[in-house]
Amino acid sequence: MLRRQWLGRDWVQVFRESYAAISRFIMNALDRISDNEIKQLVDTLVNAYNDGKKVLVIGAGRSGLVGRAFAMRLMHLGFNVYVLGETIVPALHPGDVVIAISGSGRTKLVVTAAEVAKSVGATVVSLTTFPESPLGKLSDLIVQIPGRTKVSSEDDYNVRQLIGIYEPLAPLGTLFEITTMVILDSVVSELMMRLGKTEEDLKKRHANIEI
Amino acid sequence: MLRRQWLGRDWVQVFRESYAAISRFIMNALDRISDNEIKQLVDTLVNAYNDGKKVLVIGAGRSGLVGRAFAMRLMHLGFNVYVLGETIVPALHPGDVVIAISGSGRTKLVVTAAEVAKSVGATVVSLTTFPESPLGKLSDLIVQIPGRTKVSSEDDYNVRQLIGIYEPLAPLGTLFEITTMVILDSVVSELMMRLGKTEEDLKKRHANIEI
Amino acid sequence: MLRRQWLGRDWVQVFRESYAAISRFIMNALDRISDNEIKQLVDTLVNAYNDGKKVLVIGAGRSGLVGRAFAMRLMHLGFNVYVLGETIVPALHPGDVVIAISGSGRTKLVVTAAEVAKSVGATVVSLTTFPESPLGKLSDLIVQIPGRTKVSSEDDYNVRQLIGIYEPLAPLGTLFEITTMVILDSVVSELMMRLGKTEEDLKKRHANIEI
Amino acid sequence: MLRRQWLGRDWVQVFRESYAAISRFIMNALDRISDNEIKQLVDTLVNAYNDGKKVLVIGAGRSGLVGRAFAMRLMHLGFNVYVLGETIVPALHPGDVVIAISGSGRTKLVVTAAEVAKSVGATVVSLTTFPESPLGKLSDLIVQIPGRTKVSSEDDYNVRQLIGIYEPLAPLGTLFEITTMVILDSVVSELMMRLGKTEEDLKKRHANIEI
Repeated sequence: MLRRQWLGRDWVQVFRESYAAISRFIMNALDRISDNEIKQLVDTLVNAYNDGKKVLVIGAGRSGLVGRAFAMRLMHLGFNVYVLGETIVPALHPGDVVIAISGSGRTKLVVTAAEVAKSVGATVVSLTTFPESPLGKLSDLIVQIPGRTKVSSEDDYNVRQLIGIYEPLAPLGTLFEITTMVILDSVVSELMMRLGKTEEDLKKRHANIEI
Repeated sequence: MLRRQWLGRDWVQVFRESYAAISRFIMNALDRISDNEIKQLVDTLVNAYNDGKKVLVIGAGRSGLVGRAFAMRLMHLGFNVYVLGETIVPALHPGDVVIAISGSGRTKLVVTAAEVAKSVGATVVSLTTFPESPLGKLSDLIVQIPGRTKVSSEDDYNVRQLIGIYEPLAPLGTLFEITTMVILDSVVSELMMRLGKTEEDLKKRHANIEI
Repeated sequence: MLRRQWLGRDWVQVFRESYAAISRFIMNALDRISDNEIKQLVDTLVNAYNDGKKVLVIGAGRSGLVGRAFAMRLMHLGFNVYVLGETIVPALHPGDVVIAISGSGRTKLVVTAAEVAKSVGATVVSLTTFPESPLGKLSDLIVQIPGRTKVSSEDDYNVRQLIGIYEPLAPLGTLFEITTMVILDSVVSELMMRLGKTEEDLKKRHANIEI
Repeated sequence: MLRRQWLGRDWVQVFRESYAAISRFIMNALDRISDNEIKQLVDTLVNAYNDGKKVLVIGAGRSGLVGRAFAMRLMHLGFNVYVLGETIVPALHPGDVVIAISGSGRTKLVVTAAEVAKSVGATVVSLTTFPESPLGKLSDLIVQIPGRTKVSSEDDYNVRQLIGIYEPLAPLGTLFEITTMVILDSVVSELMMRLGKTEEDLKKRHANIEI
């Protein structure tokens, strides 16, 4: 059942190669992230916080899960934040912020939701690998994420060059999703600084019914 | 509103420091992960796959989201996999596998659910930083995850030594959650090899109604 | 703060009027449900069960929750059933069945998802008040549900005639949602009979980790 | 494959019998609901609204879905409302209100969560068929719901007497769940009156990104 490429490898060796490849990709990706785009994302969020605007996070599949992890931290920071698809999703108004996450920028439900958000006057910020995608084109702000996404192929060459990774070590959108998670968790630190929040402040807002 | 520690830093500099600290932590964590524990986790999952047993993923908060991201990949690999708290959760039977994720190992709902799982004869595999925690103690198998978790303090010293990170650069369970995600995505690669699956196989099982 | 219409009512009296109006609506709705449409819905589900096809339930908001309640029972009956928006959603193939629930038949995300489902060859069954809606038009089978839906107005007249209900006693899609829940739970009984299942069979598949 | 009890019935006849039995049960249940308990539930919610307190809805399985449907309406009414198990769940403080739904009053995760809620000073309101259950005993307020629940047996006799229903026409917790939904939707009408809200007010807060 083994494919040729795995022959001769010990068990767990693939685990280690994959782990090393993913973490190298994450580390190298930092140089490919635009300071300016991050600054604009942070500014947009800080303004929403100060103006009492809502933030709605949109994403499908694993990108949606990464978005939820970010939404939780925004709640810990004191934001009025919501996740599309959950029970509690309020009406959006002009000035509210939508964070849309899609590696390909073509996920239908995400594009549809972002279009509706635009039509009610919300600001759409996209995290995507493809600024020229349907999602990218309708966005007010794009944070371009390095990643080998589900549908990319031209991007594959760069990924391989960069880290020598090949597909089974990080299938489908894995690199996009993990890199986005690290980026958004680093945005949380930037927001803590900008909003003057300590870890203790976050802990106070952390759900105490889970612990 | 700025705290002393942030003085003199440019905007986005904190983002970059946080990103660098997190990715360094991920990279260094590999040496602190037990080959043997990973091998046992993979063996347990491969056996469940071959025997047609169910896998149920349990976790609260961001750990639960990381668990869901893993569950999605297990589905792409062809597992009968479920997530506690979602609509479709079947009855567990002896031989079914529960993957429980909790940095502290003390999250009440996770411990309660793991106890019930044990009582119906399921095998409980825990990913936690604290093997001596209530969750750890009731588990059949523990994969110890390096991490500075929500409730740790004795662990903090080691974390600082290791990477010079301090709390606002990765608040609460951030390091545990991201490291667990990288570990589980690397387990996916190992499983692809063990089960003879290609990325194309995964793509075929990926929800086509999202794209 | 009280509106004129409430003047002179005791506390809890509105509760009782609402309860009576809703339950009367439910009871009267039975005469407006098509035997033939129910029979076709049941046949479609029985065929999916016998052929090992997947069933995917789609709905937004409270309609989506009613859909999930039905999906749970389908799982208890032994169906391969999934809910759009949850973690575990597999690829759909020709012959798989989509159950789409939308009172107005115009909920964007539901229509988009149903379109995609059609494009991959799935059979789309809609529960809606408006057969001429975008959702209705693309469906292979429609079960028309009596209801005063979010966007209806011409329908209001009939509703008032039928039961003398007025809006605050069942705001927005309330009547649609509850009636749909009763219909689908009655479909469950029909399915139990058709598939030869007892309550004991359902109990065996009920999540034992919740109890 | 047909059981004796179904012999001689036409297709769809069971659907109709089940629908009639369920709707009769709902209608008759009104006389078994305590005005005083409803009044206290409404008062508790109105006070939470006026004092800016949070409301957290807790439930497992289909009871949890009914709870979510209620939570959505509370959001439409302007409450700060959350659902346990979703991404956005804040810390609870004294004076916050927990609505716990469990027919049997013994669902482990619900009882555990309610215990934690009590320990942080929240007010626990339970909707259950069994006031003497573990959930009932720890609650500050109980709304007793007529219902034949998953684990009941002594209750069965009353149910049969009342409406002549027998199990396959409403298996497991069906009657509890639907009756609870009708009760909570009627509470919504009472709250509209008490808080001076119109359907138009609700519509304004309804998620516009779904439509």
